[in-house]
Amino acid sequence: MKKLVNQRENIVEEVVQGMIKAYPEKLSRVEGEPIILRKEKKVGKVALISGGGSGHEPAHAGYVGYGMLDAAVCGEIFTSPGADKVYRAIQEVDSGAGVLLIIKNYSGDIMNFEMAAEMAAMDGITVKQVVVDDDIAVENSTYTVGRRGIAGTVFVHKILGAAAEAGYSLDELVDLGNRLVNNIKTMGMSLKSCMVFSTGKQSFEIGDDEVEIGLGIHGEPGTHREKMATADEFTEKLFAQIDRETQLQKGEKIAVLVNGLGETTLIELFIINNHLQDLLQAKEVTVVKTFVGNYMTSLDMGGFSISIVKLDEEMRKLLLAEQDTIAF
Amino acid sequence: MKKLVNQRENIVEEVVQGMIKAYPEKLSRVEGEPIILRKEKKVGKVALISGGGSGHEPAHAGYVGYGMLDAAVCGEIFTSPGADKVYRAIQEVDSGAGVLLIIKNYSGDIMNFEMAAEMAAMDGITVKQVVVDDDIAVENSTYTVGRRGIAGTVFVHKILGAAAEAGYSLDELVDLGNRLVNNIKTMGMSLKSCMVFSTGKQSFEIGDDEVEIGLGIHGEPGTHREKMATADEFTEKLFAQIDRETQLQKGEKIAVLVNGLGETTLIELFIINNHLQDLLQAKEVTVVKTFVGNYMTSLDMGGFSISIVKLDEEMRKLLLAEQDTIAF
Repeated sequence: MKKLVNQRENIVEEVVQGMIKAYPEKLSRVEGEPIILRKEKKVGKVALISGGGSGHEPAHAGYVGYGMLDAAVCGEIFTSPGADKVYRAIQEVDSGAGVLLIIKNYSGDIMNFEMAAEMAAMDGITVKQVVVDDDIAVENSTYTVGRRGIAGTVFVHKILGAAAEAGYSLDELVDLGNRLVNNIKTMGMSLKSCMVFSTGKQSFEIGDDEVEIGLGIHGEPGTHREKMATADEFTEKLFAQIDRETQLQKGEKIAVLVNGLGETTLIELFIINNHLQDLLQAKEVTVVKTFVGNYMTSLDMGGFSISIVKLDEEMRKLLLAEQDTIAF
Repeated sequence: MKKLVNQRENIVEEVVQGMIKAYPEKLSRVEGEPIILRKEKKVGKVALISGGGSGHEPAHAGYVGYGMLDAAVCGEIFTSPGADKVYRAIQEVDSGAGVLLIIKNYSGDIMNFEMAAEMAAMDGITVKQVVVDDDIAVENSTYTVGRRGIAGTVFVHKILGAAAEAGYSLDELVDLGNRLVNNIKTMGMSLKSCMVFSTGKQSFEIGDDEVEIGLGIHGEPGTHREKMATADEFTEKLFAQIDRETQLQKGEKIAVLVNGLGETTLIELFIINNHLQDLLQAKEVTVVKTFVGNYMTSLDMGGFSISIVKLDEEMRKLLLAEQDTIAF
């Protein structure tokens, strides 16, 4: 495997250490555990935890900090972190106002995060959860019952993070979170599989002139394969699918994320955004904010996703609030 | 070519449009020209311009904004922008205090930027330049006399940008710039060539178990090829070469950039940083700030570079000043 690693079994630990050493002014960790913490713990605030398998960097550790997450629990590559790790993170971040778990909808994550919540409940810590299932490509999948959680999760980190910072209670965050998740739709496609660092194998095979629409961020099957085409054609195709679900109306406020999966260049992402914004303008919606870049990757996979979130006034203000993280 | 583009001849124009549409609150452009401008022009400040061939995104347009650049001139992929484009940018950003050109040391860029400066001089605009040649790998190269300018250029954008914002004169910026460039050393390596979007061809051939040390960001030859090894081994090798040049002394203040070339994951970059920081700690230097990520890429090339800049107190303060750009 031609990748810059040392021992495969140490990858996640070295990433955690390398991240803390890069940003010691912002991040710390739970000693001996793959848990990235916000450096300054804020007492009295509901604490937000996310996480899942590694391989999606900068998600989720890159979103730990003021105005977003309090902790990220890093599993092995494409593998849910154990319930004990999530439980440890809950113990660490709780300051009495309760803990909210933001979980991407994968069966392993749901199981481990829920088990951790039960363990914490026995300690008297109130833990609730918001499950993100923004990927409209497929219902049920290799690792999922229902829809998968992918790049749109970053909007949940940002908007709920700002709300927690503003003093929302745990119940208010759950209510806002469920309304928000309902407003986020993502559709992606892949051009190239990724090298899974933990196994040294490509995640799937794909032809030189072939793409897969709706592929999951661990290489789970999408809706179908088709021939390579232009950036504009794929942008139209993915946007049409999102619009069928969201039924964008004139005057609605939205935010947009054009997310790269790893290998895809900013050149390509900006070309996609160029056409996407024209399609949105034709719908006469108001784009409050656009994000273009690698926000939730799949190691070195080639491809991208488009996420659109409809924003009510409350969500709009929270999206535009300040944050201080290394990746947002 | 399996890349998300439309017409090859429109790539740069679509990127410029896609970038402006993504960040209309921060960026604007010179109508009809591949020139990204800071949205709010600041009168009375020395204006900073950088640029060069495209394919290194987010460089340089991602560094346009408060506290960094006033304009970025975007050439075609791996091709210097014409002198007429640079001249147009100079006319646009000058507000009477003069214009500083930050040029990566490539013969084409030097020629075009200097010609533009002469054209502007005839209009009565004072233009000076700082040439960045941080790449210690090789003397002279395919497109360069002397050393090449690569990722360390980002430190120049940041520190001179902060100085210009603080009211430095053009001459003071040139003086600071030359002292600064002298303090920046970069060393890189490549694992995988890049697909050059404008030609549809890979930039060079490299074996499955082979890497090239000191390769340039357009695929220009490095010092030699060797067998694939671990992240730690390459980190030590590159750092040793930088240290031979910089002769790091106990107590010195530095900043560090671990830069990805495109395809390389954050996982790999953080693993590299993990060991690099240990090597720096052993030297007993003070790392003022570390940056890990894709700051100056080579399309989808695989590999990374390490840049180290020695900071005097003036440079340290300027590095830590505020900025508002999309990529820093």
